[in-house]
Amino acid sequence: MYKLHYSPGNANLTPHMMLKAIGVDYELILVDRASNAHKSPEYLKLNPAGRIPVLVDGDFTLPETAAICLYLADKHPEAELAPALNTEKRAVLYRWLMYFTNTIQTEVLMFYYPDRYTADGSEEAAANVKAAAAERLGEMLTIVDEAMGTSGPYMLGEKLSLLDFYLFMLCRWCRLIENKPRSFSNLDAFIRQMEVNPAVIGAFETEGIAQPWT
Amino acid sequence: MYKLHYSPGNANLTPHMMLKAIGVDYELILVDRASNAHKSPEYLKLNPAGRIPVLVDGDFTLPETAAICLYLADKHPEAELAPALNTEKRAVLYRWLMYFTNTIQTEVLMFYYPDRYTADGSEEAAANVKAAAAERLGEMLTIVDEAMGTSGPYMLGEKLSLLDFYLFMLCRWCRLIENKPRSFSNLDAFIRQMEVNPAVIGAFETEGIAQPWT
Repeated sequence: MYKLHYSPGNANLTPHMMLKAIGVDYELILVDRASNAHKSPEYLKLNPAGRIPVLVDGDFTLPETAAICLYLADKHPEAELAPALNTEKRAVLYRWLMYFTNTIQTEVLMFYYPDRYTADGSEEAAANVKAAAAERLGEMLTIVDEAMGTSGPYMLGEKLSLLDFYLFMLCRWCRLIENKPRSFSNLDAFIRQMEVNPAVIGAFETEGIAQPWT
Repeated sequence: MYKLHYSPGNANLTPHMMLKAIGVDYELILVDRASNAHKSPEYLKLNPAGRIPVLVDGDFTLPETAAICLYLADKHPEAELAPALNTEKRAVLYRWLMYFTNTIQTEVLMFYYPDRYTADGSEEAAANVKAAAAERLGEMLTIVDEAMGTSGPYMLGEKLSLLDFYLFMLCRWCRLIENKPRSFSNLDAFIRQMEVNPAVIGAFETEGIAQPWT
């Protein structure tokens, strides 16, 4: 049985939604961030980067959210959460998955933990990092909103994929910026679709995420 | 024939090394950064994020370095640059590819363009962002060096994969930080192997990268 090391509302949300969509049994293992458990020697053995989530499948341990997503999609082709290998759609999935993980998600970290990104320990310095991140996040959401306008109603077109769970998580995380996802028309329509998806509801409720989610 | 939109020494290096390793014909199309060509309307049609590289394969256009890497590896299984689907090694490749693209590469951007990451326009603010990035890059390279010590001589063990081309590019980019890759024993041995790899030599020389490369 899969074991997903998680903390409510963290990046585990995406693999969690996928596990619900796939319909397999899994066990959630809480990583207690309040006691800094993600930096404990035990957890660093699972993921030396000290980040959440980690998926454990038998004796195989896999960190990195986007890697876990591809792993689950590949292992459960019947759930059709990623297009088949060597199709253009598969490459488009790779493209947006990379953009989500290396661009938007990274920027979200800067928005929430701006003090980490400057050696100047002042509140003002952190506020300036946060302001730059918020502005860039708005630009990034514009790009995704436009892509959705061309391809929609999901990131790959007519068919839901793992990208949509990932994007919904990012939409939640971006709810506090000025140009929040709900202020973009295509993203707003996307969010309305996703928030009634049973896998989304199942994962968010299991993690105890209070409404409103986005 | 593949067309790779590139700028010498940019992230195109990894797909470029892969194209050399695969041994297919390709055409390089220079994106003139000096004239801000990567922000031109024509280029933004290829990649709205305005980043380099973009791979064009017939009428299919693909941005995002890590996506291009997976696309090329999937399309040319005979080159054996990625393990087969549904193997643990494939998942390990996903894991490090994500770490390279969403953690190390992103941090490299902060090191080279620190002014973008703070709304405070002063040189001092940029220097503080750069200092924080340099410190974190040292921690990240420590994680990769330790992984290489366990698995080496390549990221996936005995066999070279696309990860090694990616890591070699990151090693080049990190050559200016205090804890540079060559100061780590496993990474230093890795670099020595890679810098005599014909695909590496071919791509670096074609892009006109002056020695020393790392």
